[in-house]
Amino acid sequence: MKNFITTADWSQAELQDLLDLATQFKQGLSSQALHNKSVALLFFNPSLRTRTSFELGTWQLGGHAVVLEPGKSAWPLEFEFGTQMTGDAEEHVIEAAKVLSRYCDLICIRAFPKFEDWQIDRQDKVIKAFAEYASVPVVNMETITHPCQELAHMQAIQEKLGSAKKKKYLLTWTYHPKPLNTAVANSSLLIASKFGMDVTLLCPNESYLLDERYLSLAKQNAESSGGSFQITHNIEEAYQDAQIVYAKSWGALPYFGNWEAEKSIRDQYKHFIVDEEKMALTKKGLFSHCLPLRRNVKATDAVLDADYCFAIDEAENRLHVQKAIMQKLIQH
Amino acid sequence: MKNFITTADWSQAELQDLLDLATQFKQGLSSQALHNKSVALLFFNPSLRTRTSFELGTWQLGGHAVVLEPGKSAWPLEFEFGTQMTGDAEEHVIEAAKVLSRYCDLICIRAFPKFEDWQIDRQDKVIKAFAEYASVPVVNMETITHPCQELAHMQAIQEKLGSAKKKKYLLTWTYHPKPLNTAVANSSLLIASKFGMDVTLLCPNESYLLDERYLSLAKQNAESSGGSFQITHNIEEAYQDAQIVYAKSWGALPYFGNWEAEKSIRDQYKHFIVDEEKMALTKKGLFSHCLPLRRNVKATDAVLDADYCFAIDEAENRLHVQKAIMQKLIQH
Amino acid sequence: MKNFITTADWSQAELQDLLDLATQFKQGLSSQALHNKSVALLFFNPSLRTRTSFELGTWQLGGHAVVLEPGKSAWPLEFEFGTQMTGDAEEHVIEAAKVLSRYCDLICIRAFPKFEDWQIDRQDKVIKAFAEYASVPVVNMETITHPCQELAHMQAIQEKLGSAKKKKYLLTWTYHPKPLNTAVANSSLLIASKFGMDVTLLCPNESYLLDERYLSLAKQNAESSGGSFQITHNIEEAYQDAQIVYAKSWGALPYFGNWEAEKSIRDQYKHFIVDEEKMALTKKGLFSHCLPLRRNVKATDAVLDADYCFAIDEAENRLHVQKAIMQKLIQH
Repeated sequence: MKNFITTADWSQAELQDLLDLATQFKQGLSSQALHNKSVALLFFNPSLRTRTSFELGTWQLGGHAVVLEPGKSAWPLEFEFGTQMTGDAEEHVIEAAKVLSRYCDLICIRAFPKFEDWQIDRQDKVIKAFAEYASVPVVNMETITHPCQELAHMQAIQEKLGSAKKKKYLLTWTYHPKPLNTAVANSSLLIASKFGMDVTLLCPNESYLLDERYLSLAKQNAESSGGSFQITHNIEEAYQDAQIVYAKSWGALPYFGNWEAEKSIRDQYKHFIVDEEKMALTKKGLFSHCLPLRRNVKATDAVLDADYCFAIDEAENRLHVQKAIMQKLIQH
Repeated sequence: MKNFITTADWSQAELQDLLDLATQFKQGLSSQALHNKSVALLFFNPSLRTRTSFELGTWQLGGHAVVLEPGKSAWPLEFEFGTQMTGDAEEHVIEAAKVLSRYCDLICIRAFPKFEDWQIDRQDKVIKAFAEYASVPVVNMETITHPCQELAHMQAIQEKLGSAKKKKYLLTWTYHPKPLNTAVANSSLLIASKFGMDVTLLCPNESYLLDERYLSLAKQNAESSGGSFQITHNIEEAYQDAQIVYAKSWGALPYFGNWEAEKSIRDQYKHFIVDEEKMALTKKGLFSHCLPLRRNVKATDAVLDADYCFAIDEAENRLHVQKAIMQKLIQH
Repeated sequence: MKNFITTADWSQAELQDLLDLATQFKQGLSSQALHNKSVALLFFNPSLRTRTSFELGTWQLGGHAVVLEPGKSAWPLEFEFGTQMTGDAEEHVIEAAKVLSRYCDLICIRAFPKFEDWQIDRQDKVIKAFAEYASVPVVNMETITHPCQELAHMQAIQEKLGSAKKKKYLLTWTYHPKPLNTAVANSSLLIASKFGMDVTLLCPNESYLLDERYLSLAKQNAESSGGSFQITHNIEEAYQDAQIVYAKSWGALPYFGNWEAEKSIRDQYKHFIVDEEKMALTKKGLFSHCLPLRRNVKATDAVLDADYCFAIDEAENRLHVQKAIMQKLIQH
């Protein structure tokens, strides 16, 4: 694979190879795979873990990462083709991608949806444009999926449970005062189903279903991997016997760009918070979240501070899996 | 010591060890104490010297520094505990400190007071929370004290005067159009008294006294070190025979959060500016300031451009003392 | 030369030396000329290419670059002398230049005009103040000229045409919705005339003539180098037989600070866009632009995507020429 944009493009065996290399890095493997090489990190949105782990991972592999923020420290970019650029954008992605390819050996992109029109956002235009015009590999640092988070999550699951296969996995929607990106939720379904888990998606009602593309991929993955996929709106049923509980909030797709209308609906579901009562329904279930997380909104202090919470381990794994991804892509 | 948060936690001998190592660095000592190690630099406020000297110091010791700006390039953070995070903060310091501890070997924090309520600001919650939840050493890059500046200042004083003991030291308040942080003023008292200087604090009136905590520490330090500490509002008396004049502006604590009321008071004291007339009262006194400094507001061009001004030397020393601090903490 | 502020200070032979070294870097020359050395990159304005290429170039030469943004991540700076600093600026360039000279071995500055008063902007105060007070070499990353772009441009021209001498060179003004900096236009005239090209400046009318300083320098350069320099407002005449077409938009100097008045004039000249019809008038002419560029405003998609467009090659050369500049200055 030239790029790392979505795990849907990678087989389970290929992803397991990345995870095995990540585990070697975690155990102390030293590599200079990026010796004399450089990486462009383009952030259209804020970041703590992603920036730190990509910048340090690049450095640990002997390379150098440049952090660019289009629209802030760097020029605002245009992603439409054939358009007359009379708006805010000073530069077209065609030039940005081509020029960065001359300077750098990898281009990594964080570009969240604009939350105005899901039919546009779901096309993932920003990273696809970079991938089309860059002559070096492109890595997804979160757009409409978050594949680096997927691998960090799965590495942590395998650390805790050994094989993920046929383990009971719950992705639960939670409340959040703002409508958030569906990326990590989409990614949660993709990776858990790819590795043969028995996956349950819990959300308040049909409005909070994820995009059909990811529901279909989860079904297909489950069929191929020997896992299963089901959807429920019943909290008690969802938590029953779960071995992994993964929490995420997201905005309802039918209300995209019309958030005032959704707010009154969303506000009725604050009780989706992950708390000790719900965790008690699980089969000694483990909890995680991609972070950042609002305490006592998405999950309680008690859950986050419990021994069964592995969110910090998952965050650490970001460093290891990203080093594996960069090394594989550069050696391709 | 695990952390470097305030010099009040360090003995004079320990601080002198740091200064001696800093001097070795200044004389060309090469060290790879941070080989394969990384440092997180968290800036909640702007910086020129601090950022440059920490980033370069880390690199000179073989490590790599990551610069993070919570609320700008990184997520805004919450520092209250047990709260329901429904405000602006997307992430809690608990997670930020734990995650950064997985990626980095040192965490350095710049977090100025919010200038709304000194009873809250004086608790220094931000850096204390990081210190509590981080598993790696935490370094103060200026909060309510500025201990790195203290060491750079003392290194410069020793360069100029040899031993600081019993030398006459003046900390003078100056005018500034905005109410500034008291950190460097607190720090000035702490370090000068710790090293046995005869310390005078000059400020316009009782409203401009520093927090009782630092006045008490200055008295205690003076008793232990054989120095002395006095307060005056009389400019001529204060400058008389001074060997070091250190200037700083700060907001009056009784007016914290009520700056309009203070402004009319502060505006009466523009004559506290350090000028040649006042310097002529000293005993061939040397002048310095932590920088940044507004010329012809805090001190005149003539004072800043005089041979007796060592502000640039002091700024250079930031690099050397911070390398010493990082090396000591990492080798602890 | 201590500094690299304008190519007007350098002879053609000296510039050719830089170009030759740049070509060696492009061909794979490895150098550790900045080993243990550091570079301050001060950006008062946004950047993609400049930041990336300077940061990576420094790293490739064994050094480390620190990126500073005065007024954002770093303190706002004052450039007037003898003034009472009661405005926004917290720090004077005197201190900033002196302190950075203690930490770093080179200081690079991007400081665009303020677009309020050309009589002030044309003095290039910011970089000149740094050059005066810094004790290390200062490099221009674009102020009222853009000499690094000049060298990258000339390196690309020599790659395409061999010697530039007596080749027909067109600098054409183009439309842009905002009044832009004249820096690259000034630079285009300086470098093309320095290398003996037959230079034509095409602009809509007398209001769009560049500053007399650069018109005079172009004439003088042409006389010394055996080239020529002419000005025209006739599009067809200008393009006739051109071998290099370089496009740039800029604001009209007589309307500096009065942009509303200029807008209605500028809007009449949208047809100055570089398109295939105009390029067909040339002698198999090549096209370039310094980037960033608004597609279908300054030049059409067809021109930018044509084989005769070398803007990406020119952008790549930024890396190579800047490494040459930094190496020469540091070894001086």
